[in-house]
Amino acid sequence: MSEKRKVCLEDHEMPKFWYNIVADMPNPPHPVLHPGTGKPVTPDDLTPLFPMGVIEQEVSAERHIEIPREVRDILKLWRPSPLFRARGLEKLLDTPAHIYFKNEGVSPAGSHKPNTAVPQAFYNKIAGVKRIATETGAGQWGSSMCFAGTLFGLEVKVYMVRVSYDQKPYRRMMMETWGGAVVPSPSPDTEAGRAVLARDPESMGSLGLAISEAVEDAVSREDTRYALGSVLNHVCLHQTVIGQEAMLQMERFDEFPDVVIGCHGGGSNFSGIAFPFLGDKIRNKTNVRLVAVEPFSCPTLTRGSFAFDYGDTAHLSPIVKMYTLGASFMPPGIHAGGLRYHGAAPLVSQLLNEGFIEARSVHQLESFEAAVQFARTEGIIPAPESSHAIRAAIDEALEAKKEGKKRVILFNLSGHGHFDMTSYEKYFAGQLANYVLPEAEIEKALQELPKVDL
Amino acid sequence: MSEKRKVCLEDHEMPKFWYNIVADMPNPPHPVLHPGTGKPVTPDDLTPLFPMGVIEQEVSAERHIEIPREVRDILKLWRPSPLFRARGLEKLLDTPAHIYFKNEGVSPAGSHKPNTAVPQAFYNKIAGVKRIATETGAGQWGSSMCFAGTLFGLEVKVYMVRVSYDQKPYRRMMMETWGGAVVPSPSPDTEAGRAVLARDPESMGSLGLAISEAVEDAVSREDTRYALGSVLNHVCLHQTVIGQEAMLQMERFDEFPDVVIGCHGGGSNFSGIAFPFLGDKIRNKTNVRLVAVEPFSCPTLTRGSFAFDYGDTAHLSPIVKMYTLGASFMPPGIHAGGLRYHGAAPLVSQLLNEGFIEARSVHQLESFEAAVQFARTEGIIPAPESSHAIRAAIDEALEAKKEGKKRVILFNLSGHGHFDMTSYEKYFAGQLANYVLPEAEIEKALQELPKVDL
Repeated sequence: MSEKRKVCLEDHEMPKFWYNIVADMPNPPHPVLHPGTGKPVTPDDLTPLFPMGVIEQEVSAERHIEIPREVRDILKLWRPSPLFRARGLEKLLDTPAHIYFKNEGVSPAGSHKPNTAVPQAFYNKIAGVKRIATETGAGQWGSSMCFAGTLFGLEVKVYMVRVSYDQKPYRRMMMETWGGAVVPSPSPDTEAGRAVLARDPESMGSLGLAISEAVEDAVSREDTRYALGSVLNHVCLHQTVIGQEAMLQMERFDEFPDVVIGCHGGGSNFSGIAFPFLGDKIRNKTNVRLVAVEPFSCPTLTRGSFAFDYGDTAHLSPIVKMYTLGASFMPPGIHAGGLRYHGAAPLVSQLLNEGFIEARSVHQLESFEAAVQFARTEGIIPAPESSHAIRAAIDEALEAKKEGKKRVILFNLSGHGHFDMTSYEKYFAGQLANYVLPEAEIEKALQELPKVDL
Repeated sequence: MSEKRKVCLEDHEMPKFWYNIVADMPNPPHPVLHPGTGKPVTPDDLTPLFPMGVIEQEVSAERHIEIPREVRDILKLWRPSPLFRARGLEKLLDTPAHIYFKNEGVSPAGSHKPNTAVPQAFYNKIAGVKRIATETGAGQWGSSMCFAGTLFGLEVKVYMVRVSYDQKPYRRMMMETWGGAVVPSPSPDTEAGRAVLARDPESMGSLGLAISEAVEDAVSREDTRYALGSVLNHVCLHQTVIGQEAMLQMERFDEFPDVVIGCHGGGSNFSGIAFPFLGDKIRNKTNVRLVAVEPFSCPTLTRGSFAFDYGDTAHLSPIVKMYTLGASFMPPGIHAGGLRYHGAAPLVSQLLNEGFIEARSVHQLESFEAAVQFARTEGIIPAPESSHAIRAAIDEALEAKKEGKKRVILFNLSGHGHFDMTSYEKYFAGQLANYVLPEAEIEKALQELPKVDL
């Protein structure tokens, strides 16, 4: 009898609603503060940045929010994404654990990011916006926004973190193939970029700085709005199609996870797989554990402070309560560019602080080791970001082996590594290293946290 | 009402048998001749090259050949592949045609090639072979063989056509991530390679030459066999999972194609989508047209001769009757590296010669124009090879528009273009050109055809 390897779903089985974790949180989210006044923002404060459809979702507490038909029609270019049982990896590890993964790498841009790029493009389009400014770390988000932009006839300008711009020329070309305009950040196109270039012409950049540039671009042009690929509530909301599909697919495998794992940069990928399971846990008292995995070199959730902070280095974006390493924190140039952010999604942060989820960090070399084991047993070459989740899943499976007990593990494979092959080459050549952030550097960054008086 | 965009199938709906077109051909295939004696080869002649499981399939006339369970278990890592209706492209073209495509780019290696790499690795494994030598043009086949090799614990050595080796470093790194050993061809590792390097150290190489190197490697080592990614009967056979799935998926869309299109290099991709439809046409008298599309710069089917010829430049491989531009033909370095072969699958050749299928050629620039239209409406960035099929599909859709009549078009998207982004960059920069092969060059190559006395 041939083994079941995966569960696909048909078009009509794709979720018709996004799931909003806010409805099931015992405490409401902390307010979002205006970067200039330090007072809670109103929807009007956000209109220079976002279209109203997005702002409404950002502040909504409704459990289910309908996905517009136009958005579903585009999501169906790759969704529902398949859910796999990693039988090859299980065999290699000789573990009693069952390892499952959701493959978000099947989207045209190669990651989970289009799940929110498409609705963001849609809400901008119906609001009459002509152009979107955004930033990108690893290139996954920028690609996704260019992809979504071309489908809705919007211009897209991408500020790409310098270290990724240099390491990933193919990502840039991909964005250009979809008609996007791409510059390295820091760029000479904005005040924020010029200021950093003046101090350090060789700056590798950071996600925080690239956000500043994109926000500045957006607020300075009437026809332009900003789009963020992670962190914010509406972004986490849009990603919940992942977890909702996964719940249905796990059912078709007749299993329920003991642990659900996602890598964590800004928080959208983790939220996408975890929030639907967490909401179910809160409502129905299941025992599932939710684990966010970040790099040891950028330990926002595991070593940062839970505090009000800016989302960007130039202090143009709203102040939110989150785990943070400080807005001026410049993480080392590890290859998981999508995980190099100083902050974290406020929703993830609050849920971590209140004990609903767990966080752990893994070293770069251990994540690549896991990536290669995965590639050679399951075939798919993972993105370095996703490899953090694979590492944690393997560790869970090895623990189960030590205990001699079955454990059902589900992780989110956020994307493929087709545009990260140079990182693999460096790994095989022994040119990568682990990095532990000195305590002093964390303390220094945190001294700059804004004073907030609520 | 939300539109149906695609049909996926579940694991258990994957075909359990390969379909062999030989069973439905009115005339038997021409004999395969020994390159040394010019006499028909026996299975024993082929044992230095292939394991017996493969040889049996090469000469089989049975209509249905069972796919081993171990092979199906691996194919399910990505199969069944989804079939899409290209609604975005239809809208752009404003055509009454319905355009469908099968997406073979969802495999871990990114193309249809693993469909045959996996069974070839399996039959070698059960025959006790330890190592496989093979060649690759665009890198799709080499990647696929490395992918399949690692899953079955086989070493893989890949001779990669120099022009692709230089243009596609990421493809090499991908093969290495799967544990393969890759050298540019011509290489100093074989007699065939050294001979060409002596004449022309800057040689860009060709698929014909790389085949010579891999064959020489295989026959010179007891533990090694050869694997070919196209042309031969067993390769075309393994690809028929594509067309069989597509027939079922078109049924689920309640449509039947008027025309089925595949790009053509060695013939395996075209065979995969076309042969199940052609067998059905022969048995049940349908009206479907089958169209193979090749580059204008390497016009094997449209300007070559139907003759006995060698499959490789060094005359080590068997002589087969096929459309050919001559085994010494060196095609220009167009970016669709997978379509740079002097010959064609004997089965495709015979079926073309007997009027069962059609062939046409398209220019490089027109294929890239089609690729960008496709990427900006359907999201997926196609491989340059696949773009030839897209071009032909668009032309069919525009003809339908001119006629004002519906036409149901199905093409095979053989792979994605994630490792071809530099080609797109050159296209956008105006650095690509069309190329028309001079008649004199074709005549010259054909003067070298072997004399065959049957």
